[in-house]
Amino acid sequence: MSTDSTFAVRAFVEQNSAGFVEDLKSWLRIPSVSGDPDRVGDVRASAEWLAAKLRATGFPTVEIWESGGGRGLPSVFAEWPSGDPDAPTVAVYGHHDVQPGTPVELWDTAPFDPQVRDGRLFARGASDDKGQLFFHLLGVRAHLAATGRTAPAVNLKLIVEGEEESGSPHFAALLREHAERLACDVVVVSDTGMWDRHTPSTVTGMRGLLAAQIDVRGPSGDVHSGSFGGAIPNPITELVRLLAGLHDADRRVTLPGFYDGVVELGATERQLFAKLPFDEARWLRTAKSRAAVGEAGFSTLERVWARPTAEINGIWGGHTGHGSKTIVPSEAHAKISFRLVAGQDLAQVREALESWLAERVPEWIEYSVSFEGHGVRPCLTPLDHPALNSVTCALGRAFADDPDGEPREVLYTREGGSGPEADLQEVLGAPVVFLGLSLPEDGWHAPNERVEVANLLKGAEAAAYLWEDLAGNK
Amino acid sequence: MSTDSTFAVRAFVEQNSAGFVEDLKSWLRIPSVSGDPDRVGDVRASAEWLAAKLRATGFPTVEIWESGGGRGLPSVFAEWPSGDPDAPTVAVYGHHDVQPGTPVELWDTAPFDPQVRDGRLFARGASDDKGQLFFHLLGVRAHLAATGRTAPAVNLKLIVEGEEESGSPHFAALLREHAERLACDVVVVSDTGMWDRHTPSTVTGMRGLLAAQIDVRGPSGDVHSGSFGGAIPNPITELVRLLAGLHDADRRVTLPGFYDGVVELGATERQLFAKLPFDEARWLRTAKSRAAVGEAGFSTLERVWARPTAEINGIWGGHTGHGSKTIVPSEAHAKISFRLVAGQDLAQVREALESWLAERVPEWIEYSVSFEGHGVRPCLTPLDHPALNSVTCALGRAFADDPDGEPREVLYTREGGSGPEADLQEVLGAPVVFLGLSLPEDGWHAPNERVEVANLLKGAEAAAYLWEDLAGNK
Repeated sequence: MSTDSTFAVRAFVEQNSAGFVEDLKSWLRIPSVSGDPDRVGDVRASAEWLAAKLRATGFPTVEIWESGGGRGLPSVFAEWPSGDPDAPTVAVYGHHDVQPGTPVELWDTAPFDPQVRDGRLFARGASDDKGQLFFHLLGVRAHLAATGRTAPAVNLKLIVEGEEESGSPHFAALLREHAERLACDVVVVSDTGMWDRHTPSTVTGMRGLLAAQIDVRGPSGDVHSGSFGGAIPNPITELVRLLAGLHDADRRVTLPGFYDGVVELGATERQLFAKLPFDEARWLRTAKSRAAVGEAGFSTLERVWARPTAEINGIWGGHTGHGSKTIVPSEAHAKISFRLVAGQDLAQVREALESWLAERVPEWIEYSVSFEGHGVRPCLTPLDHPALNSVTCALGRAFADDPDGEPREVLYTREGGSGPEADLQEVLGAPVVFLGLSLPEDGWHAPNERVEVANLLKGAEAAAYLWEDLAGNK
Repeated sequence: MSTDSTFAVRAFVEQNSAGFVEDLKSWLRIPSVSGDPDRVGDVRASAEWLAAKLRATGFPTVEIWESGGGRGLPSVFAEWPSGDPDAPTVAVYGHHDVQPGTPVELWDTAPFDPQVRDGRLFARGASDDKGQLFFHLLGVRAHLAATGRTAPAVNLKLIVEGEEESGSPHFAALLREHAERLACDVVVVSDTGMWDRHTPSTVTGMRGLLAAQIDVRGPSGDVHSGSFGGAIPNPITELVRLLAGLHDADRRVTLPGFYDGVVELGATERQLFAKLPFDEARWLRTAKSRAAVGEAGFSTLERVWARPTAEINGIWGGHTGHGSKTIVPSEAHAKISFRLVAGQDLAQVREALESWLAERVPEWIEYSVSFEGHGVRPCLTPLDHPALNSVTCALGRAFADDPDGEPREVLYTREGGSGPEADLQEVLGAPVVFLGLSLPEDGWHAPNERVEVANLLKGAEAAAYLWEDLAGNK
């Protein structure tokens, strides 16, 4: 490590922590709730606040990008070229919009009045995601100060979305529109967490998603079950027979070829997952469930992180009101969704569902299947990917007692769902790695959202190490 | 036949048909819609009109019975003892309330302005059921005139309900309250139809009903299917697996012992059913369905008339709105109902469902099952029952060219559902037979309800023969 310890990253971060927290509090006071039409102006104010702060930090290019849909929920783009023609290009992703603060009465202090208590900063967005995006501004300053550079060792780009909490409805289009400006070698997402306060970890993959609706039609109108029941097809019966066959006895999905190409968990990753201190009773409380049940041969974490699933999200048909109504109903419907893992192809799963239905639905039943959008691709970064190695090294140093001594072990997690990360991977064609230090108890989307100030500072420190590492300077 | 032909039944009926139709029209002008709170007074006026007409006919005892529930929808009771200590007692059932006339704009003439066109009397209630009850008043007069009696050959009772079209919510209680007054050897129901205009027939049985709701609980609240999907039980999946197992590959119900005791169709009845001119394409149009599908080994008519069924009437759970919502839902629910046939016991089927569920629901799933009321018992009159034979003889004579010559063949039908008939059978402990001459095209509950005046006259004629026959005078 060549860095002069006077300007070492950790020392710089610590010296500037008070100002960092005060700045972040200013930003957190802006209630940039993208889901609330009355807060559109605040989302814009938040974007402008961030843009000004990025300029002050030294980013030579800072732009506010309008999102699609005319909703006025802009994103912020910033770029800071390295100046080194061989430097890799990194795009950092985060978002500056937040969840609503409601119900306000469940908060100990108001959601948009940030307060630090016992080393924790309480405010809506403190952890998700303003805090975790904001540590990058301190991180790049620490990186420059520690290395004596005037520009980062990597070409640094930031894309900070303004409607992630509204489901990122225009983000893929925004990425496509600005694909050239955002071109990069690796995407660093700072919108996730670590396993727990004692276990630094990084996310290596997220499951994709394909959502569909199946509609089954029986009689052209409801008919009397006394007059006709037992002699004509009941669409609910046909639907439940179909759906009951969606999984086999081992709770594996029965669509033909569904598992073809699935990137199976390697022995190393299974061992690393198993090292995570998993408390099933506690997990079940979070899952609001009494039992862990799933595909035979896999642990709970493997099931939610690394295995594809078929889930029935909703079902309806016939009489659903009070009392009984003795009908053979006209229609039955179900919403189902598939979580997909690396190696599965959206179009292939879609076709598999279509052919599975065509094969199983009796000829005398009318049905249709429709898909919700195009779905979300799964993303996965192999454990031996150099960028992933850089992230674990950076985190290992940030969590070590001495950043130049023995690094802490960093474990791997995945996420069972996915946000705009898959869009980043798909549109930008770059691997996605995750630098997020939120804790499970930070209360995302809940009252009393908070963040450990120490973790934000570790994030800034890790980011500084990461830029050096990715540039090849260790 | 000892009857003087001058006073023969048919001649009397024909001579009095004009007055009969005019009287019936007066009654049909009273809009006795039991389902309309604004028509409560009309239901009472209808009861009073009928009571006055019964007194004028000669019934020595006529009473208006208030129904339970304080809804003001009275029934009418009338009694005319034979005077012969050996005479059997017959209770005739019908109802004087009607369906609404809406939508009035779909009627060619107003629903409560009765009009005869081409031998058909058009009005709400013309066929269901004022017309079919009213022919009994002409029938008993014809019986007296033809036999020269001053009182009927049987002890004749009439019970004319005032809230059948509202689901007979208080009828069983009314029967229990007045069980002694209504005590009888046979019940004659005049609220059904015949197979078609060319095929005189009588109903021999009705299916019973048991309705239940199954509730399955998963997570204590909806949870994110990305975070938890594939590792916890989904209550919809559990429910559809259960319901898919409700029938086997032959579409037989799988509840343990469900078919125990079922009175199987005899070869004679199957042959008689098969003689009915059944047009499957036409039946499918009525069933609004594309295919006739049901329990293996039985015809369509056998399935709806003589076989017990399990029907899913409704299902719901999770997200049923627009778009997708990627959850593992908290609850799933289904409404199911069983049609039961003679030999099946309500309590036994109820227990069978409970034990079937207990056996099949995985231990880690919470569920409950509840039943809608006590259910309706099936009713069935054996083909060799003397009262049924009397009905077919009476109908055969009424439809014969010469009532004293060769009788027309009368076939047997059943009904797939059931109304208050099962209550009559159960509370009064008497066999139920059916004297109904409505046609399938009479448009019950539909615009332009009508009745063939000729069929009402046949009904009066058949009733007259029936009283003689039941009294043992042929």
